[in-house]
Amino acid sequence: MKRYEQLADDIARSIREGLLARGERLPSVRQASAARKVSPSTVFQAYYLLEARGLISARERSGYFVTGGVLGLPPLPEPSINDDAEVTEVDVSELVFEVLESTRARKVVPLGSAFPSPLLFPMARLAKTMAASVQAMNPWRSVEDISPGDAELRRQIALRYMIDGVQVPPDEIVITNGALEGLNLCLQAVTQPGDTVLIGSPTFYAALQSIERNGLKAMDVPCHPREGIDLAAMERALTQHKPSACWLMTNFQNPLGSLMPDEKKKDMVALLTRHNVPLIEDDVYGELYFGDKRPKPAKAFDTKGIVMHCASFSKCLAPGYRVGWTAPGRYAKTVERLKLTTTLSTSVPAQIALASYLKKGGYDRHLRSLRHTLLLQQIKFVDAVERHFPEGTRLTSPSGGYFLWVKLPDGVNSLELHRAALKHGISIAPGPIFSSHKKYTDYVRLNYGHIWDDQIESAIETLGKITHKLAAQKAA
Amino acid sequence: MKRYEQLADDIARSIREGLLARGERLPSVRQASAARKVSPSTVFQAYYLLEARGLISARERSGYFVTGGVLGLPPLPEPSINDDAEVTEVDVSELVFEVLESTRARKVVPLGSAFPSPLLFPMARLAKTMAASVQAMNPWRSVEDISPGDAELRRQIALRYMIDGVQVPPDEIVITNGALEGLNLCLQAVTQPGDTVLIGSPTFYAALQSIERNGLKAMDVPCHPREGIDLAAMERALTQHKPSACWLMTNFQNPLGSLMPDEKKKDMVALLTRHNVPLIEDDVYGELYFGDKRPKPAKAFDTKGIVMHCASFSKCLAPGYRVGWTAPGRYAKTVERLKLTTTLSTSVPAQIALASYLKKGGYDRHLRSLRHTLLLQQIKFVDAVERHFPEGTRLTSPSGGYFLWVKLPDGVNSLELHRAALKHGISIAPGPIFSSHKKYTDYVRLNYGHIWDDQIESAIETLGKITHKLAAQKAA
Repeated sequence: MKRYEQLADDIARSIREGLLARGERLPSVRQASAARKVSPSTVFQAYYLLEARGLISARERSGYFVTGGVLGLPPLPEPSINDDAEVTEVDVSELVFEVLESTRARKVVPLGSAFPSPLLFPMARLAKTMAASVQAMNPWRSVEDISPGDAELRRQIALRYMIDGVQVPPDEIVITNGALEGLNLCLQAVTQPGDTVLIGSPTFYAALQSIERNGLKAMDVPCHPREGIDLAAMERALTQHKPSACWLMTNFQNPLGSLMPDEKKKDMVALLTRHNVPLIEDDVYGELYFGDKRPKPAKAFDTKGIVMHCASFSKCLAPGYRVGWTAPGRYAKTVERLKLTTTLSTSVPAQIALASYLKKGGYDRHLRSLRHTLLLQQIKFVDAVERHFPEGTRLTSPSGGYFLWVKLPDGVNSLELHRAALKHGISIAPGPIFSSHKKYTDYVRLNYGHIWDDQIESAIETLGKITHKLAAQKAA
Repeated sequence: MKRYEQLADDIARSIREGLLARGERLPSVRQASAARKVSPSTVFQAYYLLEARGLISARERSGYFVTGGVLGLPPLPEPSINDDAEVTEVDVSELVFEVLESTRARKVVPLGSAFPSPLLFPMARLAKTMAASVQAMNPWRSVEDISPGDAELRRQIALRYMIDGVQVPPDEIVITNGALEGLNLCLQAVTQPGDTVLIGSPTFYAALQSIERNGLKAMDVPCHPREGIDLAAMERALTQHKPSACWLMTNFQNPLGSLMPDEKKKDMVALLTRHNVPLIEDDVYGELYFGDKRPKPAKAFDTKGIVMHCASFSKCLAPGYRVGWTAPGRYAKTVERLKLTTTLSTSVPAQIALASYLKKGGYDRHLRSLRHTLLLQQIKFVDAVERHFPEGTRLTSPSGGYFLWVKLPDGVNSLELHRAALKHGISIAPGPIFSSHKKYTDYVRLNYGHIWDDQIESAIETLGKITHKLAAQKAA
């Protein structure tokens, strides 16, 4: 690594870790050169690099400012696991459906959507690859590629694990209908109805729906908006409630965008191993990092086979193809059999198309461009929220993924905001759908994975106006 | 309908209904002409037509003989539902997996397989259609075609229902990952763990696995090998045990091949309606009829929305694509929501490829050829079993589908046959995997959906020899 790259990385880390907040000015080139004992040109090169990565930008005559990073984080949700009442029957699915169904019309501005814009993906190249591979397909593949799945695809996935420093043999991998099927199968593999599942709070609503549907109970553990789940609270919960599984997103958690540091992942896996609780790791956003390299999954620190890693191509390559996978550690055989009796197999043409795409190369080039686009989008969205929303609003600016978690001014009800916004043709994801207790009533999740244009800018302006109005009503 | 077609249909019905058994001679042309008061040429034309359909064949100088139809049916399983013990925890999945996994190697002769040969399907034409449709696909379809599924595909499916005389609006249809997902979702929509499900006996093992996996109990009702479930026994079971659902195949049941007559379907739906028990109707073989027209599903007789009809393209058009559907009557919304939280969506490229294929036409032409091939295959398989298996063997010859249900001589154990056959590289499906009580120890299911060749002929010969040996051991 060259000296200027080293310097850029150090600064990038400081930004990601919140030491340098968005809006702050960086040291001048002269100051940095003196402090770091490097030539001014090294500093210049480092700043150029950071600018290209979207982390800082130059303002005329005033120097460089942090434009990515973290500013005004929402507060840590209050710890709330110290009494038994916190193990709850989950009953949020109806609300989730009500919200999601209201936002599916195409003309609605999709700030509440869970999907990034399909226009960000190489759909034409994928289609071409699929056309070639399905026309060359041996008909017997339709039998042989049923679960655990196409051998070449599993080999390609194992190769990517290897490159990221995780040892996963192809034999451990089960191809699934998107990550969601993998997560559901993993949950079913290690729980019985009535069991308790440890989750973060806030959490992705699909986890809540799955827990509810499988007759399980949820136990919330608070999550820090930057570093993920609170390990001390997790330890208390493990001791008191003996959950059958833990279901978490480690990288760019939905909705928080939190990125659990590697050391913390390691500690968490050790903790869960001590308590013999399997970890269902939802890692669908891991490839969408804005930093220097892919954050490791908790799976990387697993020595006993307790981590059931789930991921997919839906959010980073091939939306709608419904190809995901799981590497379920010591539960691999159980999960494979569950898959066989649930959906038998993942669509074979989709499997062989993705195997062929991965083999050809070009995935990493696409990912680099996708990450860059998402980061630039984040800067625009954050900037617009800051301009249009009332004082007292706080928000994350995660170092990956495509969600902002926005704390509205105290007392502003996000379900009211949701209903009012919908009348203006704008969807948002209100906080209560991310909680087994329907908490987070003054939070919303905004999707910045849709291409910035006047309609979106105007939608954020409208949301800001409605929030102003709701805040004024509360004050009155 | 022309006169000779009418005559051919009458004879075909007599064969299917067992009035004319396989091996019997038909009346001479002169006799038939006199008896039916039609010209000899009308009789000739009718016989030609039946020969083309594979139901009869001419033997030199001896006239026409029945080659299709029914001969030597296995006995009706003994009624066995009169005591509470018959509601059972199901624990057969392990055995099913053990059997299925042992038969997956490509070089094993697949008489135990659940799939027909993929070479029987228009894979090249499908691939071409998929290539064109995926390359013309609007990227937004990846979002819009999530569950309930692609609008054009649902419209095409609704059109086929209409042609078959069943009223199903496109809005009721949910596209699933093969029929298996549809069946599982329907079961989950109407049951809670601990509930009882009424099934036929023998029954398709995937139903048993699904019941087991969902923590349900099974209640067996005996099935007639030609006409399906015993309605009197069903009525007693409904009254005594109050099941939450009934799961059945009405057309060409796996493994029996039984076809429930229309009147019986109507009576069954009325019976279930009176008891307010939803019917999960697995109709994946309905298109594979050898008669004159598609047998109706029970869904056709449903007036109250209690029939949850499940089908797919996997067995009749597009193996490996994993596109099925369900029309779940009054439970449509519940099933759609379950689908959203289970796998979110069926692979979009596969959905639009099939929509495009159906729209273009050609499906019915393919189906006619497929049915004809399967019927010819059945004749060869039945003939080979009759030549090679010992006395005391009995078998079905169903009027659709691609399975034979073979009763071995008394006391011959089909699991022993399975293990011995596997050593010769031959798979079979032993009877016990089709029973919640692991009954049918002297039955096997043979798949005649693989293209007849010397290897298959020799495999049946080997199976016959092993059976002879096992029968001799029992006798000794």
